[in-house]
Amino acid sequence: MFDEILCRIVDETKGGIGAVLMGYDGIAVEQYFLPREEFDLQLVAVEYANILKEVRKTAEILRSGETEEVSIRTEKFYVIIRTVGDEYFVVMTLERDGNYGKARYLLTREVPQLILALA
Amino acid sequence: MFDEILCRIVDETKGGIGAVLMGYDGIAVEQYFLPREEFDLQLVAVEYANILKEVRKTAEILRSGETEEVSIRTEKFYVIIRTVGDEYFVVMTLERDGNYGKARYLLTREVPQLILALA
Repeated sequence: MFDEILCRIVDETKGGIGAVLMGYDGIAVEQYFLPREEFDLQLVAVEYANILKEVRKTAEILRSGETEEVSIRTEKFYVIIRTVGDEYFVVMTLERDGNYGKARYLLTREVPQLILALA
Repeated sequence: MFDEILCRIVDETKGGIGAVLMGYDGIAVEQYFLPREEFDLQLVAVEYANILKEVRKTAEILRSGETEEVSIRTEKFYVIIRTVGDEYFVVMTLERDGNYGKARYLLTREVPQLILALA
């Protein structure tokens, strides 16, 4: 169920590498990723979970309202972290030249399905 | 010089609120923002500087290459953090319903000018 949704997000995005559904406790609920030798998606997810926690804390200090999405572009990758309700989030990774806009659209489309599936 | 560039970025973006050019030491080089009572852009910049530092550290651990851009969407705002060379970055804030794509485009267009001006 979760894996089908994550699979759709990754496979329908040009340059999609993988996606992990995680809790803020750092434990992955489900993950889907294309085989890549040099890439430890689990490690990526845990590291970015820490960033999301920092961002949430900052948003609280600044009274910016709930954090919905964090996108990070590096020389090699795009990482999109999207909150899924209050306790979970998805970390999606794609190639630097992948379709960032499509990935964001697919996350917007699929997050309600994830929330339903988690309920 | 810096203020003209920051002004262009903010004024040409629908929903633009302000932009700060900062060093990683947390000190602002220049800032430009529209008057808003409830908004302490300086505080925003300092808080997000900390996030950018975390993101850079993470990118190093994960060998993702240099961090180029971090975008954060909350209930109320978009915040785009864009690196400017190795020592500086711009934090741009816009309304949640502002033109995020235009803001990213303008940052891409103006960052080389900022690098030239800082040299």
